[in-house]
Amino acid sequence: MAPTIKITYFDITGKAELLRLILSAGNMDFEDIRVKKEDWPALKPTAPFGQLPTMEYDGEIYAQTNAMAKFLAKKAGLAGNDDLEELKMDMFMEFMNDIFSKLMGVFAKSESDKDAAGKKLFEEELPAMLKTLETHLEKNGGKFLVGDTLSYVDIAYFDLLQNLTWEDHPFFPNLPHNELRLDILKDHPSLVEHMERVKEHPGVLSWLDKRPTGPK
Amino acid sequence: MAPTIKITYFDITGKAELLRLILSAGNMDFEDIRVKKEDWPALKPTAPFGQLPTMEYDGEIYAQTNAMAKFLAKKAGLAGNDDLEELKMDMFMEFMNDIFSKLMGVFAKSESDKDAAGKKLFEEELPAMLKTLETHLEKNGGKFLVGDTLSYVDIAYFDLLQNLTWEDHPFFPNLPHNELRLDILKDHPSLVEHMERVKEHPGVLSWLDKRPTGPK
Repeated sequence: MAPTIKITYFDITGKAELLRLILSAGNMDFEDIRVKKEDWPALKPTAPFGQLPTMEYDGEIYAQTNAMAKFLAKKAGLAGNDDLEELKMDMFMEFMNDIFSKLMGVFAKSESDKDAAGKKLFEEELPAMLKTLETHLEKNGGKFLVGDTLSYVDIAYFDLLQNLTWEDHPFFPNLPHNELRLDILKDHPSLVEHMERVKEHPGVLSWLDKRPTGPK
Repeated sequence: MAPTIKITYFDITGKAELLRLILSAGNMDFEDIRVKKEDWPALKPTAPFGQLPTMEYDGEIYAQTNAMAKFLAKKAGLAGNDDLEELKMDMFMEFMNDIFSKLMGVFAKSESDKDAAGKKLFEEELPAMLKTLETHLEKNGGKFLVGDTLSYVDIAYFDLLQNLTWEDHPFFPNLPHNELRLDILKDHPSLVEHMERVKEHPGVLSWLDKRPTGPK
């Protein structure tokens, strides 16, 4: 019997969405538990690092999104074929952490510094990082980030870029220069094509159709 | 014949030290290339994400410290025995990223905010994170973070805590409340014991004895 998998997060896409997408792409059953903000403090002490999302797998509770993503991707056959492919996938997931750090860095700025930091983020830093990503994609043949089939790394960047260009995102519109954010893919056609390619996967598509929150 | 491994970084411990420690713990030969700051701009375009450290492995160049650490740890037999141990190791490495983010967040503050942020970091945030780490360590029997033998995760936290309590660190003394930083382990005896345990490993010890920079 397959182990029971429960993903616990808030009722948003956010960090849990990658896990939900991988599980759906791998056609794996899971319980999608969505916690109300007011219920979180009571739950927090049970989370291994005091954060959501968590994953209950076979009765034990785990945490840290990229760690869980990779574990589930292995079960789903979406984590590469050898150590060198795995190394490359880990590289891309860490680069995604670098991108998030840049984004979060602007949220953390004091109000007086936020405008300049947002402009720099959306006009310089993020485009440069997306260019780096695009160059890697093209160097690998343009279809997938690592190897020659879909992996969880492709799904992760699809999810990131959907969020970055989602008009109704719960957090990003609070950053200055929102109009630059929504236009962030204009010079990156290979990334747009890559997003479309990921979206064609039946498991991904099925989740996008039925998910209760997030961009469609 | 074993593949040629070259680690390229600046002439400091910093992010490359984990890779050097894992290689030494695994008794693997490597070339320890140290770039002068003034030579870095010319080299930067050859780095996969424009950052150091990089690793040349069997003729190809890789990047992202934790990805390379994990890859080398696998070759060294320091990366666990099954998918669940690997998941746990990934969790601890991501938690280390959380710790670094907190530290870097204070560096990024404007001068007027830095004092309060540093105080909060060293008096509240970092002690709470070290407490979480200590709780996990003790839950696993107190000797190692994952499983019942030394892994690269133990080495990674040893390296982090050595740096955090290193008086002559090239960057941390620039943060406010340096005296709190140097005292950060005072309430965490299990972590101090854990550091000593890692230091007993012959490969680790041999690197500490001969490394050109860093705490002894």
